[in-house]
Amino acid sequence: MIVIPLIERKRDGGCLAPSEWRDVVLAYARDDVPDYQMAALLMATRMNGLASDELAAVTQAMLDSGARLTFDSGAPRKVDKHSTGGVGDKVSLVLAPLVAACGLAVPMISGRGLGHTGGTLDKLQAIPGFRTDLTLAEARAQVERIGVALMGQTDEIAPADRKLYALRDATATIDAIPLMAASIMSKKLAEGLDGLVLDIKRGSGAFLPRLEDGLELARTMVALGTDHGCRTVALLTAMDRPLGRACGNALEVVEAVEALHGRGPSDLMDVVLALGTEMLVLGEGAPDGTTARRLLDDAVASGRAFAKFREIVATQGGEVDAIDDLRSLPSAPVIEEIAAAADGVVTAVEPRSIGRAVVAMGGGRQSMHDGIDPAVGIVLSVAPGDAVERGSPLATVHARNAATLAIGRQAVEDAVEVGPIPGEPPLPLVSHRVTADGVYVVGDG
Amino acid sequence: MIVIPLIERKRDGGCLAPSEWRDVVLAYARDDVPDYQMAALLMATRMNGLASDELAAVTQAMLDSGARLTFDSGAPRKVDKHSTGGVGDKVSLVLAPLVAACGLAVPMISGRGLGHTGGTLDKLQAIPGFRTDLTLAEARAQVERIGVALMGQTDEIAPADRKLYALRDATATIDAIPLMAASIMSKKLAEGLDGLVLDIKRGSGAFLPRLEDGLELARTMVALGTDHGCRTVALLTAMDRPLGRACGNALEVVEAVEALHGRGPSDLMDVVLALGTEMLVLGEGAPDGTTARRLLDDAVASGRAFAKFREIVATQGGEVDAIDDLRSLPSAPVIEEIAAAADGVVTAVEPRSIGRAVVAMGGGRQSMHDGIDPAVGIVLSVAPGDAVERGSPLATVHARNAATLAIGRQAVEDAVEVGPIPGEPPLPLVSHRVTADGVYVVGDG
Repeated sequence: MIVIPLIERKRDGGCLAPSEWRDVVLAYARDDVPDYQMAALLMATRMNGLASDELAAVTQAMLDSGARLTFDSGAPRKVDKHSTGGVGDKVSLVLAPLVAACGLAVPMISGRGLGHTGGTLDKLQAIPGFRTDLTLAEARAQVERIGVALMGQTDEIAPADRKLYALRDATATIDAIPLMAASIMSKKLAEGLDGLVLDIKRGSGAFLPRLEDGLELARTMVALGTDHGCRTVALLTAMDRPLGRACGNALEVVEAVEALHGRGPSDLMDVVLALGTEMLVLGEGAPDGTTARRLLDDAVASGRAFAKFREIVATQGGEVDAIDDLRSLPSAPVIEEIAAAADGVVTAVEPRSIGRAVVAMGGGRQSMHDGIDPAVGIVLSVAPGDAVERGSPLATVHARNAATLAIGRQAVEDAVEVGPIPGEPPLPLVSHRVTADGVYVVGDG
Repeated sequence: MIVIPLIERKRDGGCLAPSEWRDVVLAYARDDVPDYQMAALLMATRMNGLASDELAAVTQAMLDSGARLTFDSGAPRKVDKHSTGGVGDKVSLVLAPLVAACGLAVPMISGRGLGHTGGTLDKLQAIPGFRTDLTLAEARAQVERIGVALMGQTDEIAPADRKLYALRDATATIDAIPLMAASIMSKKLAEGLDGLVLDIKRGSGAFLPRLEDGLELARTMVALGTDHGCRTVALLTAMDRPLGRACGNALEVVEAVEALHGRGPSDLMDVVLALGTEMLVLGEGAPDGTTARRLLDDAVASGRAFAKFREIVATQGGEVDAIDDLRSLPSAPVIEEIAAAADGVVTAVEPRSIGRAVVAMGGGRQSMHDGIDPAVGIVLSVAPGDAVERGSPLATVHARNAATLAIGRQAVEDAVEVGPIPGEPPLPLVSHRVTADGVYVVGDG
């Protein structure tokens, strides 16, 4: 296919016709366009943007490059959540069984850790035996039987996106908002959803720290979902500090299980319940937000949410004992509490420092083929605004050895700032709600 | 080498340090940077530009990636000319022997046809047996012996530029003015020149039609050459109509030989003498322009210019008979004169239409490995401003067969516009002179 005139047009600020985008994306997936031409087109697109009809065409072509999850028409309504990623974000582990326990189907395709952030698949695999590499056929059968599956992107879904994503990662075009939107939505739309809620992180630990960028991504994805017949709502949530207390794969499984038992940290529960409420309403599992919230609370209090998680673990080959007795999850040999050096108030807990340290300690990948140490991580004892005394705990570092312990200790010292007076108030946990109708500011708490 | 941070910086409008540019260009030449990363960096550079120190570093790295022509210090001063390319531009064939006949050395590296334009190497190879693939050692020996060599870029010179040029050609980054300047100058500086004159074409048939783009390229290259210790002057010349009358390889050799005998079309001679005057003054072969012009006229009138061309042909393996008796050059079997359909005045001769037709008739390459038919082409009988009568000749088409004749006929009908009254005056043949001191407007004629 002749690509140069298309590159020239995008380079010069023009638009490609939807059919041209479709052709070039599908040709690239077939290896009929060389990487270097696609790299030039992606960079021109990163710098000059995509019009909404171009974006829709790119998304549709990536979606059409692969297979979709399809269900019998009699099945329950299907909903899912996508997060742009953060530190300590174990929301999916809690939310998927919780919403499934309320009667909706949740065919959830998640990702691995990326950069300083953790990934749902890596966390699930801290449970010994847990399989995330379900085929589409397995996922369909599992959703039909137990209402929920937690899986990775397969080669069957949006292969054009997989190939483009790898190229963008190598050519400094990852952060193009329309390309991010198309990449996420092409996978989510392949799940055959009735409703989708997006958790768009903002703040220093987010991939897009600035509010305006988060809102642009949210509006773009909500419009794409809506255009494709999938009711889509986005919430902008805080990632100026880690979510919850635990950062690290097995440590986050522990916190997620505690949350399913009703004992989760309040910030984690607030985000889970805000997203879950949207999912129940979008999927018509509840007539309104108040009812949805009550159904979610009931599902936790009754034990049905945890029971559903247990069912997922059992179905996907994981050791149920490990979540029944959390002490049998992988644990680190070297554990040290880091104490405050002085009295004061916590003014910041910088999520990037914590996230990077967990990766450096072995809890994430520094290159594509690295293994992961599920046991290591950092459990924070404090959050911004908390008063501390000299010697009181700031965090506990779980390390494999003395060298990685030192990385964790340094990260806690760098990330947890303690001052004589309170700092700027942290971002509201849920600050904005974006629907097809517009952007709404949400009250704090 | 880690390229992504460099791509990000250029993408975001920043600059790379000269050492970073040097490293990335040399690493690319060594195949240590993949094409797709270099494509992204080139597109970001095309869109955000290069600062002057970046440009100098890119040029120096491309130059340093290969070998250079070196001469004994006792040799005459070396001068050359570079043209940005046009239709009917056989200037090099006349200028190189003419300036060498005036006592300066001319180690001239030329190119092949590109797009709608012809190439000096293709024209020279219309002379049976003429070899353009000289090694650097052969070129050096020839320049030392007869004062001039006409050759192609070898693998020895600026290999980084060869590889980058091929990538730019495939990624819509050819027309980035600083990259064009770096590419041209890295090759010319490898010739070890004392002086260089640049023929920057402007008008509809030029690669950069707009005056401001031509001036920017001229200023950029003059600054680069001057910084590298090579005295450099640029002239902006007209390419809103073909230069001279003949377009096509052997046909242009005929016109060039006629010019060396003092019988060339006046527009061709004006451009040759303007460029030759600059070369003689830059190379200190003449103390001033008036003297230079007289020396050039003498070299033609005395027969020394043609004798030098004959010497080049003989030395480079060409059949001297073919230029002594021009009828023995390759000629086309189908020749047809195209007549004016009505009385009037020629208002335009569109060079792109003529150039594209010559390529389509077989006189240029449509893809990299095409052969070339040296005989075919179009010889114009008229220029803008000429009065014509119905039935009087507009051009003669020289074709291989009836099908390609039709292409040539159509091109003449499209390109040569005849109206009832004269059109806009054509561009002045030489409109601007750019030196290290500034830009000067040149009077017409």
